[in-house]
Amino acid sequence: MELADIGVTGLAVMGRNLARNLARHGYAVAVHNRSAGRTKELVETFGGEGTFLPAEELKDFVASLKRPRRAIIMVKAGAGTDAVIDQLAELMEPGDMIVDGGNALFTDTRRREAALRERGLHFVGTGISGGEEGALNGPSIMPGGSAESWEALGPILQDISAKVDGVPCATHVGPDGAGHFVKMVHNGIEYADMQLIAESYDLLRQGLGATPAELAEIFREWNTGELESYLIEITAEVLAQVDAETGAPFVDVVVDQAEQKGTGRWTVQSALDLGVPVTGIAEAVFARALSGHPEQRAAARGLEGPSVSGVAGRELIEDVRQALYASKIVAYAQGFDQMAAASKEYGWDVDPGAMATIWRGGCIIRARFLDRIRQAYDGAELPTLLADPYFADALAVAQESWRRVVTTAVSIGVPTPGFSSALAYYDALRRDRLPAALVQGLRDFFGAHTYHRVDREGAFHTDWSGDRAEHPA
Amino acid sequence: MELADIGVTGLAVMGRNLARNLARHGYAVAVHNRSAGRTKELVETFGGEGTFLPAEELKDFVASLKRPRRAIIMVKAGAGTDAVIDQLAELMEPGDMIVDGGNALFTDTRRREAALRERGLHFVGTGISGGEEGALNGPSIMPGGSAESWEALGPILQDISAKVDGVPCATHVGPDGAGHFVKMVHNGIEYADMQLIAESYDLLRQGLGATPAELAEIFREWNTGELESYLIEITAEVLAQVDAETGAPFVDVVVDQAEQKGTGRWTVQSALDLGVPVTGIAEAVFARALSGHPEQRAAARGLEGPSVSGVAGRELIEDVRQALYASKIVAYAQGFDQMAAASKEYGWDVDPGAMATIWRGGCIIRARFLDRIRQAYDGAELPTLLADPYFADALAVAQESWRRVVTTAVSIGVPTPGFSSALAYYDALRRDRLPAALVQGLRDFFGAHTYHRVDREGAFHTDWSGDRAEHPA
Repeated sequence: MELADIGVTGLAVMGRNLARNLARHGYAVAVHNRSAGRTKELVETFGGEGTFLPAEELKDFVASLKRPRRAIIMVKAGAGTDAVIDQLAELMEPGDMIVDGGNALFTDTRRREAALRERGLHFVGTGISGGEEGALNGPSIMPGGSAESWEALGPILQDISAKVDGVPCATHVGPDGAGHFVKMVHNGIEYADMQLIAESYDLLRQGLGATPAELAEIFREWNTGELESYLIEITAEVLAQVDAETGAPFVDVVVDQAEQKGTGRWTVQSALDLGVPVTGIAEAVFARALSGHPEQRAAARGLEGPSVSGVAGRELIEDVRQALYASKIVAYAQGFDQMAAASKEYGWDVDPGAMATIWRGGCIIRARFLDRIRQAYDGAELPTLLADPYFADALAVAQESWRRVVTTAVSIGVPTPGFSSALAYYDALRRDRLPAALVQGLRDFFGAHTYHRVDREGAFHTDWSGDRAEHPA
Repeated sequence: MELADIGVTGLAVMGRNLARNLARHGYAVAVHNRSAGRTKELVETFGGEGTFLPAEELKDFVASLKRPRRAIIMVKAGAGTDAVIDQLAELMEPGDMIVDGGNALFTDTRRREAALRERGLHFVGTGISGGEEGALNGPSIMPGGSAESWEALGPILQDISAKVDGVPCATHVGPDGAGHFVKMVHNGIEYADMQLIAESYDLLRQGLGATPAELAEIFREWNTGELESYLIEITAEVLAQVDAETGAPFVDVVVDQAEQKGTGRWTVQSALDLGVPVTGIAEAVFARALSGHPEQRAAARGLEGPSVSGVAGRELIEDVRQALYASKIVAYAQGFDQMAAASKEYGWDVDPGAMATIWRGGCIIRARFLDRIRQAYDGAELPTLLADPYFADALAVAQESWRRVVTTAVSIGVPTPGFSSALAYYDALRRDRLPAALVQGLRDFFGAHTYHRVDREGAFHTDWSGDRAEHPA
């Protein structure tokens, strides 16, 4: 009896496409789904693409795998994942590998990895980005877990991943939850990226009075330069789309309430725990939340706006392009800071340049400038991406445009929380002295929280309610 | 043997002052501390203020309380709290009350309340704001827990609380964790408030070239108008302070790294779970985090700034005052939204007007305009505080100034994340159409996440990689 090289359980569209991708690369793939219909359909429809070994029962699925066994779980992240892991683990033997390809919260992955490690099993939480299309034709793959599991899985994952300049978009991120953490931050950056694109579109539409079709052309043009990326490319496609039913621009028939599934929120929550400012991601998550409160928006509709509404000149286009690029650099810098902080906190030893490398292709945020990020981190200890000479120069070129964009948006009443928070971050980080000193003074006044002095060591408290003398704390 | 009306265990400065406050109001107060020295010191130093019943052992402390027993725990929030609660609970009887006066995370309070309820005990997580001074002379008190516990505790807590217009700054917030939740949001708003004050100071100092002493006068002046509040008052005091050692303004000798203890972070994390945009609090928390990364700031110091640095005219002062007031209204609106969302989520039935009422005095964010918030919520179902006529008018008056302030700050490179995120929130909320529609289109493109149409019910998906026709999802 032929045994499978690897197995996939959970055959909704992502799982099915991943199984097909594996089969197309010559791997014999065991396939299983809770309801057998999907398994049957996969084999009937795509059986010609390679070797599939279908199983109706999980035990047969596991029995059909070569040892050490490699089983990928592709089910919706949540409580259900634990049940599938448990069932698989019961059927497996020491040295076998369970791979979770869903968007699990990294703390869940850490817990699961520790539990399975005790039973001698390898648990690999892996990020897989690229949507259905990527799963089939080459995603970006971000596996965590043990070095041994990477040895056994790495060649397969690199085989089926996207390639850029011949380099696979799959690498070992680090132990336990590192893979899911990095995928979470990837998604957080994706939120920020989309928010900045949305602000660019909105401001140009309001500021220039341009139509979505004209804006599609602008984005298409942008996609030939330093902004070249999948999200810019598909923005042009979405803006060019015409609603067949009404003849109106597609974007005008869509309800303007953006939904979210959780990874953006998790990214910000984790960043708060780690003490890393990820303002770009936070503003993007909150902008979506705001859009989803129609009752508040209805109540606020009558609030006074600016008297200025003059249409801006065409030079706004290049200014917005610069603002988008600069704000994007800030969002990525913040995301990379968060990965560095988590890597330190959890001892993951994540290589930032390697993350930039595997994000260059396959994933939703794939972009030309990720290669620049890869170069920036190549061998350098960078406290912040903004300090890399290439990006510092890009920001120097962009910053006056960026300021004009925020100024224009504020003057005509178009909300650009992403642009303005990124600019505030930039201006704060480069500042010699911050008013945080006043905040510390206030905290000492009302809560005796103490402060440090610029001229000598130690913590101090001023007796604010008494003689206002300073004392060592 | 005389029995105590109420007890306090944990006699660091907050606990000690709360015990003294109780004693001064005629209550016989049992006092206990893990190390007996503090108990002894309290009785020796302040015994003349009222009736203290000191106990060295916790069992004697409990035995000295009238039944049903009322014991307030004033220890540092954290794992230690569980131990003290357990020890107290072991010594108590059904109907007795344990009050946690620390800044516990509301989910911990919910867990503890449920566990003690099963044992027939009342657990009351209560916010207490006002620092040492407030604890002694009248804090703002925000108790959660059962209605029965409020019946037994309410009169005492109202007695020792601050009063405004004769109304006590203490009321029953709602069941289980409601009190600690509201205190958490209070602290989150405090973060936002302080950040806005810091930005006002910074922009006026840079924009006008004013000295801290001159700025102290400006804040003193502001404290006579609609900004009248404790934080504005003490800002003037801190800015007027001169360092005795160097003769320099105090604010210039303080290290400009703002610290935090966690409630601001929790507020944002909870808001993310609830889907409530609290951009003002988030930007404030992140501004503190940013200030605390000296290595990044050093690396970013050479980044290019604006060429404009011209000193602004005196009219900037009134503009900044308006921007501060408007941004503050937004921060409070967001905080009140968060309380409403949590109240709905957990079935707390929190009365927003009552919260505004008890925040008018005693607490750190006490301010004249909280009485306006109280009036706004009085009998009204407000989807957002911004829609209340009084505040809508104030925003209409302020908005052009607010825009000029952000524009000025951006032009001269002073970071004002609080002002600009509040303005972006304002402009987004009042917007007829948001670019969230584009975000939904992109999500449908790369992830088949579907979208809704403005003209009919249902979810739809466009076959982006195929013929681009729309299908019901």
